[in-house]
Amino acid sequence: MGSAAIILFSGGIDSTTTLAIAIHEGHAPVALSFDYGQRHRYELIAAEKTLRQFPGCKHVVFQLDLTQMGGSALTGAIDVPKMRPLEDSTIPITYVPGRNLIFLSVAAALGETLEACDLYFGANVLDYSGYPDCRPAFIESVERTLNLGTRAGVGGKQFRIHAPLLQLTKAQIIRKGIELGVDYSSTHSCYDPDPGGLACGQCDSCRIRRKGFEEAGVPDPTRYLSR
Amino acid sequence: MGSAAIILFSGGIDSTTTLAIAIHEGHAPVALSFDYGQRHRYELIAAEKTLRQFPGCKHVVFQLDLTQMGGSALTGAIDVPKMRPLEDSTIPITYVPGRNLIFLSVAAALGETLEACDLYFGANVLDYSGYPDCRPAFIESVERTLNLGTRAGVGGKQFRIHAPLLQLTKAQIIRKGIELGVDYSSTHSCYDPDPGGLACGQCDSCRIRRKGFEEAGVPDPTRYLSR
Repeated sequence: MGSAAIILFSGGIDSTTTLAIAIHEGHAPVALSFDYGQRHRYELIAAEKTLRQFPGCKHVVFQLDLTQMGGSALTGAIDVPKMRPLEDSTIPITYVPGRNLIFLSVAAALGETLEACDLYFGANVLDYSGYPDCRPAFIESVERTLNLGTRAGVGGKQFRIHAPLLQLTKAQIIRKGIELGVDYSSTHSCYDPDPGGLACGQCDSCRIRRKGFEEAGVPDPTRYLSR
Repeated sequence: MGSAAIILFSGGIDSTTTLAIAIHEGHAPVALSFDYGQRHRYELIAAEKTLRQFPGCKHVVFQLDLTQMGGSALTGAIDVPKMRPLEDSTIPITYVPGRNLIFLSVAAALGETLEACDLYFGANVLDYSGYPDCRPAFIESVERTLNLGTRAGVGGKQFRIHAPLLQLTKAQIIRKGIELGVDYSSTHSCYDPDPGGLACGQCDSCRIRRKGFEEAGVPDPTRYLSR
């Protein structure tokens, strides 16, 4: 196995594909999930299941309660919007203030202690759908910041944030994963699942996912509440 | 009162002075402290006491357990070094991987929800003493990152990180605070206090503090274990 890499891992399509890419690129993977008070906490169960297909992958679940902050439908009492036009480019209420920067900072901190300077982040322009913290310029700026403000960066071990899905559509991501042997059956994307983990089928994330499988010509393994 | 500002507030000399400056500059202050598993958790009690002199200042204590990460004498089982030469410019073992970036990210996230885009951060070149995440280039890079990756930044409300102590010596910081009416008697700096909050007098932080009071010609109110 090559050097260790940290993969931000929610257990969805994007982060699972990103994990497969990190392994394909020769890294010893450490999947980092966050228990942050998300409404869709079911994703942590899905993450655990999905990881079974990657033997040797370490899993770290970091406790970081973002409900202390409020301000998002994903962590608060605000309802997750359903059937929102996907072409609406305003920032949706499911945006969690500062989330990706906080997650990348924690990933880098963990990376320092594990001597893993390669960070994999499954952001993509499609998923961006208005999220400012998935933009390429943001990701580059975080990378620069990490190399200025960490022992590793200053010591000459450059942090690198890999965002291999950035320019891919959901269908291309799924095809890429299938090519790498990924089994998507346990992955979870829904922002508002029922307690048993059935997907709502109506939030942005469900609809982008369903459309992705359709366009990829791959059977959608998701168990939806409504079809 | 002017617009709200978030002040990273540990309850030490630097953050207390920074808070006084933020108020002097017309902001409605929100002091943000972190309960992060620090060995010197006594600082949170000191922070609470110190804030009594700033009526109207809100206090948020954010729970974020950095012991999940390890890798530092401030959050782990590693001993805090005593009587380390202060001119040693290597990164000390009290460095907490990623801490200031994580703290600034949380401050920005809180700032978004409170519509407070002014963040005050009491970093200074003296306290830097080898910490990469107190460097001016790092702070500028974080500010840039925040404006690229947040709803507020993208929406045209620029985040600004104020670091008014950056170029001051500890003695200058203390004189500045005295000028603004700060009472330092409850502030706490020690990395390794006894359970009652007595300062060890020997860690980097104690010695920089003591030297600061001496050079400022201000009586040192600290209760030390040993003198």
